[in-house]
Amino acid sequence: MSEVGITVKKAENFSDWYTQVVLKAGLADYAPIKGCIVFMEHSYAIWEKIQAFFDKRIKEIGHKNAYFPMFIPERFLRKEAEHFKGFVPECAWVTIGGDTELKEKLAVRPTSETIIYTMYKKWIKSWRDLPILLNQWCNIVRWETKATKPFLRTREFLWQEGHTAHATKEDADKEVMDILMIYKDLIETQLAIPVLAGRKTESEKFAGALYTTTLEAVMPDGKALQMGTSHNLGQNFSKAFRIKFIGEDEKEHYVWTTSWGISTRLIGALVMVHGDDKGLVLPPKIAPYQVVIIPIFYKEVEKDTILSKAREALTKLKENRISTVLDDRAEYTPGWKFHEWELRGVPIRIEIGPRDIEKRQIVAARRDTLERVEIKEEELLKTINEMLEDIQNNLFNQAKRFLEDHITSVKTYEEFKEVLRKKGGFIKACWCSTRECEEKIKEETGATIRVVPFQKEDLFSNCVYCGSEAKEVVLFARAY
Amino acid sequence: MSEVGITVKKAENFSDWYTQVVLKAGLADYAPIKGCIVFMEHSYAIWEKIQAFFDKRIKEIGHKNAYFPMFIPERFLRKEAEHFKGFVPECAWVTIGGDTELKEKLAVRPTSETIIYTMYKKWIKSWRDLPILLNQWCNIVRWETKATKPFLRTREFLWQEGHTAHATKEDADKEVMDILMIYKDLIETQLAIPVLAGRKTESEKFAGALYTTTLEAVMPDGKALQMGTSHNLGQNFSKAFRIKFIGEDEKEHYVWTTSWGISTRLIGALVMVHGDDKGLVLPPKIAPYQVVIIPIFYKEVEKDTILSKAREALTKLKENRISTVLDDRAEYTPGWKFHEWELRGVPIRIEIGPRDIEKRQIVAARRDTLERVEIKEEELLKTINEMLEDIQNNLFNQAKRFLEDHITSVKTYEEFKEVLRKKGGFIKACWCSTRECEEKIKEETGATIRVVPFQKEDLFSNCVYCGSEAKEVVLFARAY
Repeated sequence: MSEVGITVKKAENFSDWYTQVVLKAGLADYAPIKGCIVFMEHSYAIWEKIQAFFDKRIKEIGHKNAYFPMFIPERFLRKEAEHFKGFVPECAWVTIGGDTELKEKLAVRPTSETIIYTMYKKWIKSWRDLPILLNQWCNIVRWETKATKPFLRTREFLWQEGHTAHATKEDADKEVMDILMIYKDLIETQLAIPVLAGRKTESEKFAGALYTTTLEAVMPDGKALQMGTSHNLGQNFSKAFRIKFIGEDEKEHYVWTTSWGISTRLIGALVMVHGDDKGLVLPPKIAPYQVVIIPIFYKEVEKDTILSKAREALTKLKENRISTVLDDRAEYTPGWKFHEWELRGVPIRIEIGPRDIEKRQIVAARRDTLERVEIKEEELLKTINEMLEDIQNNLFNQAKRFLEDHITSVKTYEEFKEVLRKKGGFIKACWCSTRECEEKIKEETGATIRVVPFQKEDLFSNCVYCGSEAKEVVLFARAY
Repeated sequence: MSEVGITVKKAENFSDWYTQVVLKAGLADYAPIKGCIVFMEHSYAIWEKIQAFFDKRIKEIGHKNAYFPMFIPERFLRKEAEHFKGFVPECAWVTIGGDTELKEKLAVRPTSETIIYTMYKKWIKSWRDLPILLNQWCNIVRWETKATKPFLRTREFLWQEGHTAHATKEDADKEVMDILMIYKDLIETQLAIPVLAGRKTESEKFAGALYTTTLEAVMPDGKALQMGTSHNLGQNFSKAFRIKFIGEDEKEHYVWTTSWGISTRLIGALVMVHGDDKGLVLPPKIAPYQVVIIPIFYKEVEKDTILSKAREALTKLKENRISTVLDDRAEYTPGWKFHEWELRGVPIRIEIGPRDIEKRQIVAARRDTLERVEIKEEELLKTINEMLEDIQNNLFNQAKRFLEDHITSVKTYEEFKEVLRKKGGFIKACWCSTRECEEKIKEETGATIRVVPFQKEDLFSNCVYCGSEAKEVVLFARAY
């Protein structure tokens, strides 16, 4: 589907580079409906890997999946005032069903708290019914008006949303943190993207939350990307929806709820962080195929020997749980295939040609470093396994160095603006904790407080904006 | 969530019995939006089992998953005339996005042929691009006006829809049949529901198809249920959407397309076919939990021994891939638990009490026959495995006998009506193959031709309606 490679350099035009990689690597295509994309097989397979990892982990600690209706009556959304303000401006509304105008218009879910809590109110009666630990994998609609950016800003996307109800604040606190740590694990160990963890400020938290925890990564253009959030909704929603239970103390209490989500935007992060001028670069643990085998023969007489050797390698790798594909399509040249698989980011390419048969070896090319090495036949499995591990680590470490290089401490607003202008990334600064300073900085520079780190750091200056006494050290950035 | 058992008998009030089982077994709940239900964790876990089986099988033969937008502009639906007529009357329409009235209203997908083919037109250029073998798992909306019946008739449901494009009719024919056979395998070997396979008539086929193949089952009330369909869409859609390719012959051809789907209605079938007066009965292969262990102790001193024995059994069963849960909730009595797990249909209940510890045994109760047997500790694994297999077979054979008992051959229209009135099920009759007779029978009796069996049978009478020469043997039934 991609006849030419990436025609712009990542370092020169990041935005065009991103779009080209997404389209030419066959991750997504623009749909003929404004704001919508098709998640093509290549990106969907990555999403399935994300799903498998996360789904297993949350089930291990007692969560179950369920599925709630996509249609949410307007009056449900109105019940929690902040939530309504936050989401209603970007809802898509169904107003006609069959040939009938609906009496009440229905929002296509922008998030499902309100429909889910309507059910929780019905289901929860006693402490025996708690906790409720449900998750759903579904599509979400937010009627964005800004330009579409595949995976990062589209009107429909895919996500999971967890919604839990607990008897105490402590239980809800623990849930929020348990999930955030699973997200961190997923993003760092599978996607090879290092993140900063912490809380959101009052003005940046989820509409209706008591507090929001977040994971933030830095992209190569110096902008931050929110990777996943986990919210303690306190009793805000349980009060709005009257979700009460009889405790072991035989008294009535409001439940404590949490919600948390990650979405297909993670695929966008993956493209941005690891991709290069030749296209996508996938960390082995999240790659749909970890290895591609490409047979190379020039004469018809070589064909059988080479193909049978290729199939042998395929079997051996697959038996050892290395996800491998043999590209034996006759209608394309090896050169065309090299190019295509590079574009698609497969971590290791194995080449088997006449010279390799002779020498009882194969050639393996790493996608991350583009290095090519010869491997003795009998060391195939060992070497490929080591190489996959090495690629995974290399990609993470590279991204980690970039992140560390892009956290800059500043003491003055002048420095703040200069770093933002020249380098971007996260700016570590002391803040007086007032909404006014936060607002002013946002207005004047476009930077917001992305995260208040969990680990409190010692204050090293007064408030970077107003100069009065600072209360905490926070991280600012411009963000997607 | 269910404090009382099923209060009506399956044989006496099938419809109420169904609703009670669905609600009380915790499969689904009515949502506060007309026509919509919540797929609760218990039914969703069954759906996940269906997904896992089918997903693996279609991937083994080269299919991939993808995800296409949910919103379909009206003009796409209009492109194939029959398709438009078939689906537009039951679309939900989004007319407002954010605070703006849309210029063109968008249907929430009732099925995705039209949006997917718009993309295929863009992607397919040469024979090298074929076949395209994509599938998507998603939600679907059809604005039903008849009474809601969980899993069987709701405005939103879940399904998979496969959409493939091929170079020749033969390839498309093969695809249609390959998929139908995977459906048959899923439904018969996993859900333990025997089906009849064949084609639909011209008037019953999918709107826009060349031909439709179907699997039909019989429910205990004598009505037929369509379990899955696989369509050869011929070149109808490729002509409407102008999907052409350059063949190896260097000429332009229209592609041949297929589509196929199964939905969460399969869960409804599962409830109806196997359930009994005590609630749900699940075939082991599709049961989220195959075994529940319930410890029974009366004195605190017995507790530790019994719980440790229960945990031992849990570990042993789980290590051997038997999906097992230990219900050690202190807040419920064993009797309450027996009742709840019976309602929820778990195939085997293991009881461990003081007497069992003494005798170095456990007690296992089968959900299908309600039989209780004592099992020597050392034979636990072997016996449970055999029992699970036996339950699976027993449920299938029972359903198979019922199906066979409910295929009645008739030669006259009088007999036809009598069988329909007294017994229901499938009525095998000879038909002249005219739409007129098919229509008349439908109007007069409510029965439709459910399936034209693949295996042609010898004619045994004239047309059951008009008495003129018959052309084929078909199966009629009233259907869900």
